[in-house]
Formats: sequence, C-alpha cells, structure tokens
Amino acid sequence: MTTIAERIKLLGTETAFAVSAEAAAHAAKGNKIYPFHLGDMNIPTLSSVIEATIKAMKEGKTGYCPTAGIPLLREKLAADINAARGTDYTLENISVQPGGKPVIGKFLLALMNPGDEVLYPSPGYPIYESQIEFNGGKAVSYSYIEGDKDFIMDLNSMKRKITPDTKILILNNLQNPTGTECSEEQLKVIAGIAIQHNLSVLSDEAYFDIRYEGKSKSITSIPGMKERTVILYTFSKKFAMAGWRLGAAIGPKEVIDVISKLNVNQESCSNHFIQYGAVAGLNAPSEETNKILSILKERRDAAHEILISIPGIRCYKPNATFYLYPNVTEAMRRINISDYNTFRREVLLNTGVSFCTRQHFGRKAQGENNFYVRIAYSGINMIDLKEGLEKFGDFITRSSKKHSPRKSRAVASAIN
Amino acid sequence: MTTIAERIKLLGTETAFAVSAEAAAHAAKGNKIYPFHLGDMNIPTLSSVIEATIKAMKEGKTGYCPTAGIPLLREKLAADINAARGTDYTLENISVQPGGKPVIGKFLLALMNPGDEVLYPSPGYPIYESQIEFNGGKAVSYSYIEGDKDFIMDLNSMKRKITPDTKILILNNLQNPTGTECSEEQLKVIAGIAIQHNLSVLSDEAYFDIRYEGKSKSITSIPGMKERTVILYTFSKKFAMAGWRLGAAIGPKEVIDVISKLNVNQESCSNHFIQYGAVAGLNAPSEETNKILSILKERRDAAHEILISIPGIRCYKPNATFYLYPNVTEAMRRINISDYNTFRREVLLNTGVSFCTRQHFGRKAQGENNFYVRIAYSGINMIDLKEGLEKFGDFITRSSKKHSPRKSRAVASAIN
Repeated sequence: MTTIAERIKLLGTETAFAVSAEAAAHAAKGNKIYPFHLGDMNIPTLSSVIEATIKAMKEGKTGYCPTAGIPLLREKLAADINAARGTDYTLENISVQPGGKPVIGKFLLALMNPGDEVLYPSPGYPIYESQIEFNGGKAVSYSYIEGDKDFIMDLNSMKRKITPDTKILILNNLQNPTGTECSEEQLKVIAGIAIQHNLSVLSDEAYFDIRYEGKSKSITSIPGMKERTVILYTFSKKFAMAGWRLGAAIGPKEVIDVISKLNVNQESCSNHFIQYGAVAGLNAPSEETNKILSILKERRDAAHEILISIPGIRCYKPNATFYLYPNVTEAMRRINISDYNTFRREVLLNTGVSFCTRQHFGRKAQGENNFYVRIAYSGINMIDLKEGLEKFGDFITRSSKKHSPRKSRAVASAIN
Repeated sequence: MTTIAERIKLLGTETAFAVSAEAAAHAAKGNKIYPFHLGDMNIPTLSSVIEATIKAMKEGKTGYCPTAGIPLLREKLAADINAARGTDYTLENISVQPGGKPVIGKFLLALMNPGDEVLYPSPGYPIYESQIEFNGGKAVSYSYIEGDKDFIMDLNSMKRKITPDTKILILNNLQNPTGTECSEEQLKVIAGIAIQHNLSVLSDEAYFDIRYEGKSKSITSIPGMKERTVILYTFSKKFAMAGWRLGAAIGPKEVIDVISKLNVNQESCSNHFIQYGAVAGLNAPSEETNKILSILKERRDAAHEILISIPGIRCYKPNATFYLYPNVTEAMRRINISDYNTFRREVLLNTGVSFCTRQHFGRKAQGENNFYVRIAYSGINMIDLKEGLEKFGDFITRSSKKHSPRKSRAVASAIN
C-alpha cells in the first residue's frame, strides 16, 4: 500500500546494533555476556546534573524553550569552550541539540550541496558515511596508519584524495574507534589543507574531555579555522548522559542560524529542563567529573594489560576515548579464521565476549589487510571486564593449539 | 568562509517565533504581555509523569535505549491507541520520537520522492509546507470553508487538486489553527480519496485527546487506511509535556522500520528515562488527565464569550484543540487597517495582546478574502486571558469610533 521512497536506498545505519541483537539473543539462552560492543556507559550520571534537572522539572521548566537552547546554557557552554580551546565564541555561536549525533546530519544539510565530495575517516563513526550519501554527497574516506606506539592519521591519503569537488572535511580527533590523537603539528597541516582548499570542517569533538593525561586541542584554536568549522559537542560522555540526549553545534553564527532553523523544522527545541542539569554539570567541581575519568582509566589499563598478553594480539593504549582497537590479524590466523563475522561469532559463542569489528566502522580502504576489533570499556564493570577478556585470551590460546577451525565454523553457522 | 548549501533556500520556518520575539521586545520595555501566540502550555505536567521520570532517572535509565523506544512504552501505547481508535497495532508499529514534530520530516523522507505532489492543509501547521518543499516535493494546499457554526474541510478543493503526481495526503483532523473536526462521513470520503488514488497519509493527531465533548475518531479506523497511514502522536498536549519532547510515529511496520533507521542516523534514540514517565502518564487515572482538559475548557469558554462580544468579530467554539480562530475582517475594516502585520502590531502595542494571524499558517489560497487570527489559550491563566481579551475588545471598539488609522500606523512602523 505504501512504497518506500527511493532515497532510503542510500541510507546507512549503525550495524553495531545488529551485534547488540546477537549478544541479546545469546544472553536470552542463559549465557553470560561481556558487553564490549557499545559505546554506552554503565556509570551513573553526575549527581549535580540529576539534582538540577529534577529541580528545573519541578519548577515547571516543562514548556518549550528557545530553539537554540536556553541562553544560560549557551553562555556557560561558550565560556567553557573558550577556556578549553582558546576561542571567542558567544551564545550566538551555539545551537543546543538533542545529542551530539544530530549535528552530523544538520551540518551536512546546511553546508553540503549534492555532488560535493566529503572527506571522512574510515575506520570511523559509521553515520558520517551514511549521512553524506543519504544527503546526496560523495563520501571519500581517508585512513589511519598503525605506527610504533599509536595510530596516525594518514595525511598523505587525505591530500591525495582532494579534488576540485572536495568541499567538506570531517575530522574526529580523539577518534572512535582507533583512539588516534593528532599532534599539534598535524592539526596545523590539516588546517592548512582546509584553508588552501576552502573546506568547511566538522570537528567531531565527542571525546575531547575523555582523556587521561595532558590536554586536548581543537582545530578551532588554529587561526583561520573557527570561521570554517562546526564543533560537534556532546554531554553524553563527559557527564555519563548518553541516554539523556543532549549536545550542541558550535560554529560561525550564519551556519548555527541555519542549523537552528533545521531544528525548528525537525524538533522545535531540545528538552527544556535537562538544559538546567547540563549547566549544573558544567559548574560542578572537577573532582566530580574526574571520577568518571578515573573509572574509565582503570578499565583502560586493565583491558590493555590483558589484551597485550594474548598471543597474536597487538594493542596500543590510547590516551583518549573509551575504546581499544587491537590488531587481531595474527590471532585470527592462529585459530585459522579469515573473516570478521566468523571470528566475532566464535568469540561470542565460546566466551560471551561481544565486540564490534573494523567492519562496523565504514568501508575498508584499498590495501587494508590487517584485522581489528573495537573493545569498548565504557559499559562494563571491572570484574566482568577482566573475566571476559581473560576468557577471550584463553579461547585464542586454546583454539591456536587445537587448530580446529572446521568445528568452530559449524557452531557459528548455527546463528547465521 | 563557509557557503550555505542551496537547499536551505527551500527551508521554511515557523514565523510564529518572530511574533514571540516582538512580544518579548515589547515586554522588555516594561509592558505587560498577554501571550496568545504560542501553543505552549502553562499547566504543570501530570504529576505521575514527573514522579516516574525521576524514579527512572535515579534508577539509572540514563544510557541509550533501543532506537524505536523502550518496549514497555511501545506496548502500552499500542494498547491505548487500539482502544481509542479500534486498530490492532503492536509495538512493532511504533517508533518513539523526540516530539511529535519529528514525525513530519521523517514520514516525508520515508515515503515522498522528489517531484511528488503532497496535499496539505492551509491554514495549517507551517512545518508541513516547509518540509514538503525542503525535501523536494510539491506542496499543494487544500482549504477550509467557514460554515454556519464551524469550519469545514473543503473536500471539493482537495479532490480538484489531485493529479497523477499526487502521492501523499497530510490530514490534521482536530485542526491547528481552525479547530476543525471532520464528521465520520467526511473521514470516509477522505479515506475513499486516499484509497482510490493510492495515497500515503500522514494523520497528524496531535490534538486527538484535547477535546471537550464526545470522542475523537481517527482515519486509521476506516478499513483500508491503517495500511497506508502514519499517525503523528505526541505527549506534549495531553500530559502538558511540550518541553519534554516526546512523541511517536505509528504505522505500517515497513514504514516504521524506515523511520527508526532515520532515528539511528539523526538522534540514536529519544531520551530514555522520560519514556518511563510517559508509561506512567498512560497508566494514570483519567481524573488526572481530565484536570488539564477542564482547565483548557474553562479558558476556551471564557475566551470565546469575550471574543464574540467584540463588534466586528465572528468566532466559532471548536470542540477540540486549544485554539480559537476568529474572523476579524469586519473589526479590521472598522478600524481601517487592511493588512495583518499592522493589525497584529497595533493590537500588541496598544493592549499587550500577542497573537498569530492567518499569515503564520501557510500560503493563502486563491480567493481567500477574509482575515483571521489565532488565539491560543493554552499558555495564559484565566485572569490574564480575560483581562487581555477585554483590552483587545476595548481597543477595537475605541479605535472604531476614532477611525484614526494614520496615527496608529505611525506607531506600528516604529517597531518595523
């Protein structure tokens, strides 16, 4: 009776949700699951945020608020952003959003014309690729190189792919899934590329405040960049607010005005009383927010230590994000598995450990021969984290000795 | 540095926000404002909703939830919808959204191809027109006829405008701004048109539960319609939750799956803990929800009584919505004002009464010669409502006697 529109064929998704569904199905059979597949958090939201939200709700902040957000939050956020990034934004540069994710589509709608080429990271957050193509752009990926002690953004691959049709660059410094952080020197090179080719930039800074040592740097702090950059900002990670859905687009006023006009069309405004909670979070003493980081850091260290002890696994310890991105090429070879889905399902069925693989983060680059998985440690407690990854290690070791891939493949096919 | 995309030229807005801004500017000068311009509510959210939301928030429902919403809410909503509409939806037919408004754009993205003609009501909610054109469709309006005791949807104008390219019909029974309600007979005629021409239908039922006598009827209850209709559902009005941002799309599973996939791309999910609040609202005793209706009904009756006492104003008393849509043609003639903006600003500057006019609800139809304003009584208490509308009446009466339009125009131009 109804015919789905043609454009929907171009719409991608987060295939990680299929991994969740498989994990849930395995759990439903009575198995214990070790959830390393989702970037969700099992850490309580900052109590300052909860208290201020309840207060605002009870005080009747329950009607519509301005589309771009309450001025109080936009002012506080501008001050915070400026302090951390050396910028000079005002509330006019900020449009509050129901999450960080909404910024991706709205940024592209506001600045990308059909046929424009958009540079984006792969591996990377899969919604970039989906939204570029859904909205009529051409998705052109750049990649990362596995260096001696971390991943490095491949700036040569980025430069090589620029054509006269390249209009937009999506940057995700402190990156999901690799944890890559650009050096100041690299950020300057990227800024140079953007300025030379007159690119608009989406700087996805979702993990800007999720770092364990040192200080994050935003490309907006480099001269000439603030004028062409929109920051994707989110409260999801820093205050453990993923399910609250609150974020912001921060950028040049003329772009932010268009983004807010898209909000008028799509959702009127973001939840009103939660914005008071976010203000309280930004005003909370740093000890409170640091608690979240301490929990995550302990998990990172424990997960990293176990992973590097597993034969055939190589793994960096990134200073930011809540992901590890181990190279499992040799481990897979040892147990004689040559494709991602078989590996992922074998591990799930034999150990209960659930994770996403490289496949869930965009199309592979040419010549990409190594195999990687993403271990998210934001949604699992320390005991389960250790227990799960030790089981994972035992499974690899045991299966390496047995070398019986045929038997394990048969098990995997049962859930296909 | 950044160039806004071409497509943004097609993006409309809610011009009512400009009215809010003018009212706020007038208030900032120390004037009292009587806000009749926004469909916001100054009534407290249902206490059951608030309590259950706080409980869920404190219990840690603060991470992501399924994109389509928590099963508990989707099941409860399906049962409620079925009871009120005689349908047989299950949770698979429901995708929870951050408000009712998001359903408009997602419905069009899911079902409209570029160049498709879409029938929509004018006067009507201005986002229909904006989203049809922004997403590449052709917006074709149908209108309403001022009858003896209410507005009547002009089904002949609807039929006349159908062409082979007409693919979609947007219906807003219990209508904003006119308050129009279709008879069962009319709904059957509309269903016949939709079935004959194989149209997909968006049934905007935002005001389905905001009615004062009798029982609302949905077009989905007519055989052959459920398969081609998506219901826009919202919690904003019935539980006084406008600023909470929670609603749902309800329709055929294959369309709802596409809408949820759009949610994966745009916002991941709707706020998690608020969904438990909504469940509590749906489970609340009807006395609690009826309180909201009683407050609104008293306001409707008082506003209507004053409006019809004003010389030159004709006004129906609709059984639904929280709007009155008086015909002010004769009143404007008496005070010698012939355009909407002058009239609206004169009233604001002389009385503090702020309202939207016909202009804020889509393009005028051919041959539409009468003048109308929309009086929203959802966001103003009874004392101010009476005081404001009496001032409005006095202003019309006084100015009719004086007949000095030139002087008042000069005042108006001062705020242009």
